[in-house]
Amino acid sequence: MNYAVIMAGGTGTRFWPASRLDQPKQLLCLTDDHTLLEATIERLAALIPLERVMIVTGDKIAEEIARVIPALPADNLISEPLRRNTGPCLILSAKILIDRDPDAILVALPADQVIKKVDLFQRILREAMALAAQEEVLITLGIQPTYPETGYGYIEIGKSAGRRNRLPYHQVAAFHEKPNAQTAEEFFQSGGFLWNAGIFVFRASVLLETARRLMPETVQALERVDGRFDRQSIKRAIDQSYPGLAAVSIDKGVMEHTDNLLVFPADIGWSDVGSWTSLSDLFQPDEHGNVARGDNLLLDSKNNIVYAREGIVVSLGVDQLIIVHTPEATLVARRDDAQAIKKIYDELERHGMKKYL
Amino acid sequence: MNYAVIMAGGTGTRFWPASRLDQPKQLLCLTDDHTLLEATIERLAALIPLERVMIVTGDKIAEEIARVIPALPADNLISEPLRRNTGPCLILSAKILIDRDPDAILVALPADQVIKKVDLFQRILREAMALAAQEEVLITLGIQPTYPETGYGYIEIGKSAGRRNRLPYHQVAAFHEKPNAQTAEEFFQSGGFLWNAGIFVFRASVLLETARRLMPETVQALERVDGRFDRQSIKRAIDQSYPGLAAVSIDKGVMEHTDNLLVFPADIGWSDVGSWTSLSDLFQPDEHGNVARGDNLLLDSKNNIVYAREGIVVSLGVDQLIIVHTPEATLVARRDDAQAIKKIYDELERHGMKKYL
Repeated sequence: MNYAVIMAGGTGTRFWPASRLDQPKQLLCLTDDHTLLEATIERLAALIPLERVMIVTGDKIAEEIARVIPALPADNLISEPLRRNTGPCLILSAKILIDRDPDAILVALPADQVIKKVDLFQRILREAMALAAQEEVLITLGIQPTYPETGYGYIEIGKSAGRRNRLPYHQVAAFHEKPNAQTAEEFFQSGGFLWNAGIFVFRASVLLETARRLMPETVQALERVDGRFDRQSIKRAIDQSYPGLAAVSIDKGVMEHTDNLLVFPADIGWSDVGSWTSLSDLFQPDEHGNVARGDNLLLDSKNNIVYAREGIVVSLGVDQLIIVHTPEATLVARRDDAQAIKKIYDELERHGMKKYL
Repeated sequence: MNYAVIMAGGTGTRFWPASRLDQPKQLLCLTDDHTLLEATIERLAALIPLERVMIVTGDKIAEEIARVIPALPADNLISEPLRRNTGPCLILSAKILIDRDPDAILVALPADQVIKKVDLFQRILREAMALAAQEEVLITLGIQPTYPETGYGYIEIGKSAGRRNRLPYHQVAAFHEKPNAQTAEEFFQSGGFLWNAGIFVFRASVLLETARRLMPETVQALERVDGRFDRQSIKRAIDQSYPGLAAVSIDKGVMEHTDNLLVFPADIGWSDVGSWTSLSDLFQPDEHGNVARGDNLLLDSKNNIVYAREGIVVSLGVDQLIIVHTPEATLVARRDDAQAIKKIYDELERHGMKKYL
């Protein structure tokens, strides 16, 4: 059977003050009236019903996630006591699901992305799941770059591996870390590189076999978790295993070192919604270049990104700003400083204002 | 006896969103933990006890004022059904107080100003009240300009009229409307002009006699109000009289047309706190030129004016802005647009967002 594993452990510090410690990015309604997590579930619903969706998150927000997704079966909510990156998260998920279904096929993906071309996304997933059921491969979706982004990792396309239902797929030649501007430009121009979106499709057994070779200690530690245990026992086993695990991404721990990885180029209108500025990619700016969500009144103002929750933002004569209102806090930042917003967390802590985190 | 009449009818639209329809400027804690109204009362307390302070305000906020100043005798709170400028307000006040005390001396002043040199302010008032008790004069305090402001009216100093306790006073040569920049510069350089602060001292009987000649219809209409009536009857008489009154300032209606007006130059550290930018006159900016009230964290930010009520303002890399946070609204404006903030009221109304007024 096919399963989804939604990785919902992120904190989204770059969306402060809309995101808070107890309200991370995946639980924000950034793009419409639904949280990004709900949108992720809905996008999969035609392929994978909620009974076969597993959400992996952190202890701090597990309760909030159960509240936002009330129909999620309690056994499908897995909570990590501390963050150990995507490697342990996906090995744990594969272990739990294989215990419940030895033939489990997994679609693993982050909870906090936006995909605009849902039909194409579903078509690719459908073929990838079928392929994963037939062959001993791991599969990733690589996003066709639309500009030379320096903030993403890149996947270098290798030789053609086939085509299913008119969708081509390739071997992976190499993974590349976030490039500098010049390299990003070269990657973009060449056409042979895709953005690494962290979306994977695999048979649980294939991932576990591959990981047993490449991350043996992690697999061994997580083998004490049995998906057929009751919920409390599973949680106890996770809590016992996690502190000793190394924090390694599934990319670095497994994908970069295996030769059975395939990639589907996926021009699916993807965004990782990585910062406030991504809102201007997701929404058509108005005639003054402003992108605004929530109540707002932007007078003589141009090219701003504005977000208001429970209240209004009024601007007067300002340009190129990010303005965020929540009842507890206001953020005003230069638009080209969007990435620096994450440092606000440290600064608030340093200045004794943890209550605003 | 000496009385204070505090004019507290203003709406303070230039302080939105800190000021709201039900929370005008005089009820804001802009400068410290007290509202501007409370600070005005405290500044007079050494001269005039609260039992002899009368507050004139509008129906909409009378209740809130009673709440903020619980010790104010109920008979001392006068509420206007609509705004008719300072002429009717002071004629009404003089009428009510003369009914209660035929020799009443009034200090009339706005509720929403800041005066830093309180000792000097009190010394001048003490002499002005004594002078008003002895002679048939009206008296105003003129503020020594510290720069060529174009937003105030000016009082041209006439010939010397005397000196009391080392405090000189003069006849008034003329009133001048808000000047243009060049004229303001000339006024400032000449040394013969003072800012009109709207602070007056007079015997109630002298004002009423002068006004009976210059604003006869207003005086006649307000004569139906008798200060010895019970509270409900006074309110009823005011409500009946006010709709028919012309809205005229005491300056234009009386002071500009009488030759018994004297002025005390008053270098009293005065500010009318006319807009958010005045906060930078009232407070020493920090080493980056920022003036901030309330919780805030200003990173790489210079020369901003920041105000937060119940929450925090965080800024990142921004200059020359006014940033205001309240739980209901955020305002971000260019600092040199401070005067334009008052137009936000109209725009909010026009866009169907009256709930934020």
